[in-house]
Amino acid sequence: MDISPLQKARYSYQPKLPAVLRGNVDSIGIELGKPTEAVDDRAELRNIFKLSYGAPIATFVAKPNRGNRRPLVVGVILSGGQAPGGHNVIAGLFDGLKKGNPGSRLVGFSGGPSGLVDDLNVEITAELVEGYRNTGGFDIIGSGRTKIETPEQFEKALRTAKRHGLDAVVVIGGDDSNTNAALLAEFFKSRGEAISVIGAPKTIDGDLKNEYIEASFGFDTATKTYAELVGNIERDANSARKYWHFVKLMGRSASHITLEVALQTRPNVALVSEEIEAKGMTLTQVVDAVCDPIVRRADRGFNFGVVLVPEGLVEFVPEFKTLIAELNDLLAREAAAYAALSDDGARTAFVSGRLAPAARAVYDSLPGDIRRQLIMDRDPHGNVQVSRIETEKLLISMVENRLAAMKAAGTYRGTWSAQNHFFGYEGRCAFPSNFDADYCYSLGFAAFVLIANGLSGYLSSVRNLTAPAAEWVAGGIPLTMMMNLEKRHGEEKPVIRKALVGLDAAPFGVFAAARDEWAVETCYRYPGAIQYFGPDEVCNAVTETLRLESLKK
Amino acid sequence: MDISPLQKARYSYQPKLPAVLRGNVDSIGIELGKPTEAVDDRAELRNIFKLSYGAPIATFVAKPNRGNRRPLVVGVILSGGQAPGGHNVIAGLFDGLKKGNPGSRLVGFSGGPSGLVDDLNVEITAELVEGYRNTGGFDIIGSGRTKIETPEQFEKALRTAKRHGLDAVVVIGGDDSNTNAALLAEFFKSRGEAISVIGAPKTIDGDLKNEYIEASFGFDTATKTYAELVGNIERDANSARKYWHFVKLMGRSASHITLEVALQTRPNVALVSEEIEAKGMTLTQVVDAVCDPIVRRADRGFNFGVVLVPEGLVEFVPEFKTLIAELNDLLAREAAAYAALSDDGARTAFVSGRLAPAARAVYDSLPGDIRRQLIMDRDPHGNVQVSRIETEKLLISMVENRLAAMKAAGTYRGTWSAQNHFFGYEGRCAFPSNFDADYCYSLGFAAFVLIANGLSGYLSSVRNLTAPAAEWVAGGIPLTMMMNLEKRHGEEKPVIRKALVGLDAAPFGVFAAARDEWAVETCYRYPGAIQYFGPDEVCNAVTETLRLESLKK
Repeated sequence: MDISPLQKARYSYQPKLPAVLRGNVDSIGIELGKPTEAVDDRAELRNIFKLSYGAPIATFVAKPNRGNRRPLVVGVILSGGQAPGGHNVIAGLFDGLKKGNPGSRLVGFSGGPSGLVDDLNVEITAELVEGYRNTGGFDIIGSGRTKIETPEQFEKALRTAKRHGLDAVVVIGGDDSNTNAALLAEFFKSRGEAISVIGAPKTIDGDLKNEYIEASFGFDTATKTYAELVGNIERDANSARKYWHFVKLMGRSASHITLEVALQTRPNVALVSEEIEAKGMTLTQVVDAVCDPIVRRADRGFNFGVVLVPEGLVEFVPEFKTLIAELNDLLAREAAAYAALSDDGARTAFVSGRLAPAARAVYDSLPGDIRRQLIMDRDPHGNVQVSRIETEKLLISMVENRLAAMKAAGTYRGTWSAQNHFFGYEGRCAFPSNFDADYCYSLGFAAFVLIANGLSGYLSSVRNLTAPAAEWVAGGIPLTMMMNLEKRHGEEKPVIRKALVGLDAAPFGVFAAARDEWAVETCYRYPGAIQYFGPDEVCNAVTETLRLESLKK
Repeated sequence: MDISPLQKARYSYQPKLPAVLRGNVDSIGIELGKPTEAVDDRAELRNIFKLSYGAPIATFVAKPNRGNRRPLVVGVILSGGQAPGGHNVIAGLFDGLKKGNPGSRLVGFSGGPSGLVDDLNVEITAELVEGYRNTGGFDIIGSGRTKIETPEQFEKALRTAKRHGLDAVVVIGGDDSNTNAALLAEFFKSRGEAISVIGAPKTIDGDLKNEYIEASFGFDTATKTYAELVGNIERDANSARKYWHFVKLMGRSASHITLEVALQTRPNVALVSEEIEAKGMTLTQVVDAVCDPIVRRADRGFNFGVVLVPEGLVEFVPEFKTLIAELNDLLAREAAAYAALSDDGARTAFVSGRLAPAARAVYDSLPGDIRRQLIMDRDPHGNVQVSRIETEKLLISMVENRLAAMKAAGTYRGTWSAQNHFFGYEGRCAFPSNFDADYCYSLGFAAFVLIANGLSGYLSSVRNLTAPAAEWVAGGIPLTMMMNLEKRHGEEKPVIRKALVGLDAAPFGVFAAARDEWAVETCYRYPGAIQYFGPDEVCNAVTETLRLESLKK
């Protein structure tokens, strides 16, 4: 069978919408709140977004509204890394447009924002959408990371929009992409063009989150997929009783994914980068924190366990951050001499000899493979590719060395054997969970309503997510409201402020209270594979993060 | 919640039994066939199994049988690597025993066969079993790899069995463990002890398979779990269009797992070790076979793809096998001189200089990491640990080098970037699929019936697996019938013959016919996560391997 049985069955799944979006489109009205302010740097942002700063929050309510029926032509872009549910944002947007007016059209721009710049378009028809409903991936029109940044790119985007007679452009992306959407909205306004720009909050990383965005789509599905795998590994560890499994998890900078998976699976150790940075921990102290449970469990005869490691870890260890900065400087400064070297041994020695003492101490303490990776794997700018560093292997190596020393000193009496894993691509394109399928469909439909009512510079918003879908609150949040200035490549730029793990917030609090027991005991919890059918508590649960964050309200 | 919602929901799942095992136990009778012969080496095996050779096949039929009600005390062992469903073999055995006579008892021996030798026991009670029904893992009593081999171990096992008044021992394991079970059965018989030994066919590798064993349990769940992940990676590859993903899959020697996952997900390339060996391919030719689709797809603008690599690959490439044998000899012979060397560069040079020309050519062609792994990662016998070789990285490296040469020559015009993955532990302890849950429960129940009727030296058997469970045929297969002699550590030993991928059989045939299209086109199929609920075709499907093998009958 060309299409798997599950994919075929999922085509029939009818995503759940908030009640306000379910009935006749003539009954979806908008209530606007008061003018808003940015998170920070208000004066500067008011200056950048002269025409769109301070727009009010929009909430959909049941009240008569003839405006939703005008015919529209809307463009849509998928931007940045994949996240489960992107196809449902498109499906919800498409269905909303057609419900409003069968003559409305949806045009996809391929390969990310550059598709809008270069006018690489594909008509989104009912037939095309059918094959992508409730599926993972971004392959309906593809994605890409090129943002619309230069004046020339903005002009070309406008020309494309006018060529197609677009009433709006929907950008489905993360924080950078939605910031881009805000700038595009401002640009169109500045040209007197009535072309709306609406964003949708995507990222599996879970860091596009604030008071108004309860969750970024894809986080639910990705973390549940990783939790399935970690649970299986835990069951294996507990059955074989032979290995310590180190599992690195995607998540870019913040540790939301690692924290969520830890809450679902209760591993022996889960490192949270934000805590490590807050405490100013050295690499040595991080290694100690991992070795402690290993030794204590060994004393009880448990020579096995599971450690979760967030992808961004090394960027949060101050001395490692310093080392990377020095390496980047050194390799740029001595590029010619370095290029003349012909083997790895000479290269690592060259580098070591030229680092400042503190950085050299850290560099020399690293395993050979990592020392090589740091100077060989560099990005097109010549900088160390931190994401390519096999952090889980780095930790295993350093833990191994520490345990060997402790064994010699008689303080560790266990037997040591490790396995390493890295999960990222395995979860980014899974079939969206019922939650993500519903959430994304609702975001797309809500985007239609915002567009139909002429709003621009808004993020499609669906909230109250821990309640049944019928009770979700839909509307739009002005993009400028979530912004501040941050330094990018030496310049102050407007960006939507991201959320790192809050060390004072409930999810981390629950984790911190339980982890000492999880470290020494074996408290594993096995979530199993994402289920799309079956009892409500099995197939419609939200993440622990969302559940715990909602409790305090 | 301590137990995940899925685990809780699965406790209520009632595994499906063959019709003959469903009713009153007084109606489960046995029909015995004619005496049987071994697969090969019949004279030798008749001599080894003097008392148990040639027993007839047993089939359960509906007919009166008072014998199933006698009270029994049965021991059970989990042996070797984990496989989903082991807990259900135990549950089915337990339920069968109790149904026959509430006074019957099941005693678990912990940590594998050594548990029977050292009498590490745990009473399997109704309360204990409740928490493990339909779960993955082997942690109810744990597993281990130590076999019962020496005369002393056989004596101690007998003493343990008598100490507990065992009527039988059930061994849930792979080919080695079931061979062990046959020898134990013979041993007990030779001592005039009425202690039955029954085996159950476990392994995710799928190679414990023959005319009488349609499938080894765990293969279904493990391959479906790996197929979920490979499908997700394919969707990501097709969305981002940036990477070639190389995925190594567990499976020890045979390529059944890789072939099954390929049939479910249709990757661009899947290497089948058995084919590589049959064609006597060199490492260079294997690399060529991978580069060809890469180049052809690049010519069409597709700089992305997915390659599946079976774990045992390098052992099937003749020149690599030779290299490993020479390395083992060399490192044993020159152990002292080698131990005196102090850095990796010196070690690899030392080795390279002392290999025969052909082996040296292969060794020198390998990436530095692999050259180091081959001589550093050695097992307690001092032999190269082939399973630790990162074969997927070896291939990526060699492909990279070939593409660079082709680029310089102008025959490759694509852009190259790779990601690597290894799946094994992620699938070994998943919650068993409905198929494995039913199959294993039935195997356990069937083991009870064999024991109740005094049979020994049998493998619990459930066949006709592509039909609904009610139509499954249950009984027992005499272990000696599936045996031949094979060389182990220089000695001829009796073993159950394993099945490598049959190049003339239907599963490989379907793959071979389709792979040229899969190589150049993008034909990905996305199975998604294992479902336990929902439409029959979604949650009760068998593997492609089983389905195709059953067609020809």
